Amino acid sequence: MIQYPGRKRPYQKPKNKVSFAGRGMSLEEDINRSNEYYLLNDMAVVHKKPTPIQVVKVTSPSRSQAKITEAYFAKPSTTDYNGVYCSRPLDFEAKETKNKKLFPLSLFQRHQVEHLDRVSKHGALAFVILRFTSLEKTYLLLAKDLLTYIDSNKTQSLSMTWLKNHAHEISGSYPNPCDYLSTLKELIKEEKL
Amino acid sequence: MIQYPGRKRPYQKPKNKVSFAGRGMSLEEDINRSNEYYLLNDMAVVHKKPTPIQVVKVTSPSRSQAKITEAYFAKPSTTDYNGVYCSRPLDFEAKETKNKKLFPLSLFQRHQVEHLDRVSKHGALAFVILRFTSLEKTYLLLAKDLLTYIDSNKTQSLSMTWLKNHAHEISGSYPNPCDYLSTLKELIKEEKL
Repeated sequence: MIQYPGRKRPYQKPKNKVSFAGRGMSLEEDINRSNEYYLLNDMAVVHKKPTPIQVVKVTSPSRSQAKITEAYFAKPSTTDYNGVYCSRPLDFEAKETKNKKLFPLSLFQRHQVEHLDRVSKHGALAFVILRFTSLEKTYLLLAKDLLTYIDSNKTQSLSMTWLKNHAHEISGSYPNPCDYLSTLKELIKEEKL
Repeated sequence: MIQYPGRKRPYQKPKNKVSFAGRGMSLEEDINRSNEYYLLNDMAVVHKKPTPIQVVKVTSPSRSQAKITEAYFAKPSTTDYNGVYCSRPLDFEAKETKNKKLFPLSLFQRHQVEHLDRVSKHGALAFVILRFTSLEKTYLLLAKDLLTYIDSNKTQSLSMTWLKNHAHEISGSYPNPCDYLSTLKELIKEEKL
């Protein structure tokens, strides 16, 4: 790089700037944006739950000024997202894979699948959102279909062929990049939920 | 204390044992127990959301083995509890006071009240659970009634007299110490929800 006189350090790209170029945002970021869009447009109220963290040491006894100096990420006992849509409870988990043909079921915690089963039986709109990042394909799979698969198959992954027949593609574009609500709306209309 | 021969240290009570004597458990502990009871008896699926924590420094890049060395408690943007009951979304916040006559509204974050308003309008069973610890009285107040009060009053607290007319007492005993579901059931029956 040419060092111009009087300019001691070459130009550097700002480090903390988020790049929107290339393959796009992560699935979590896309869902958070869509949830903001739904909230702003009063279409649904869906939030991501905070990450469960086990706090071990805190320096100050006052909670508001407390500094946590030792803590660990804990395993989630439920799904990451839940909320309200059309007077119905909504509950889901979202995962992404770089794999092009298979979606590994190991990405879901056992507790999360059990939770989806439970809320589904209690009447919630329960599902998972699966993204194949390399293929830029995102699917909504109903919890009941995921559970039927798990109960009747020994394989530890969902094949793309199976997903094409049992899951429902999610589209989206800015400012609603993961428009799972439209997919859900169609499924409710078709009385699949 | 008499030191018996051969017994070097006098008997000491185990330190980590939780005492159930006296005024009882905290409201949060009571609600968690009732939620466990509802879950075990398949009556509802209600969970407390994890406390939101802003993580600043983590020692290891691998999430499962990561040790958080700097983090802070963040303000919650929603309520602490939500779930599913009779195919309906359920959403609430719980607070307790030592005050005997007034319940301070400052115990609720503005965001939490706004969230209750939103989910209530979208069809959720939205409410707050209020406990007067000194009086051992616990009330369920519907979000719509709380919001009507806030909109039409300038006072920063709810009086016991007002609560007796507008809120609904919650009873309970072990293993279901805060049986808000029975109160809710009655309100649904009376078509107040």
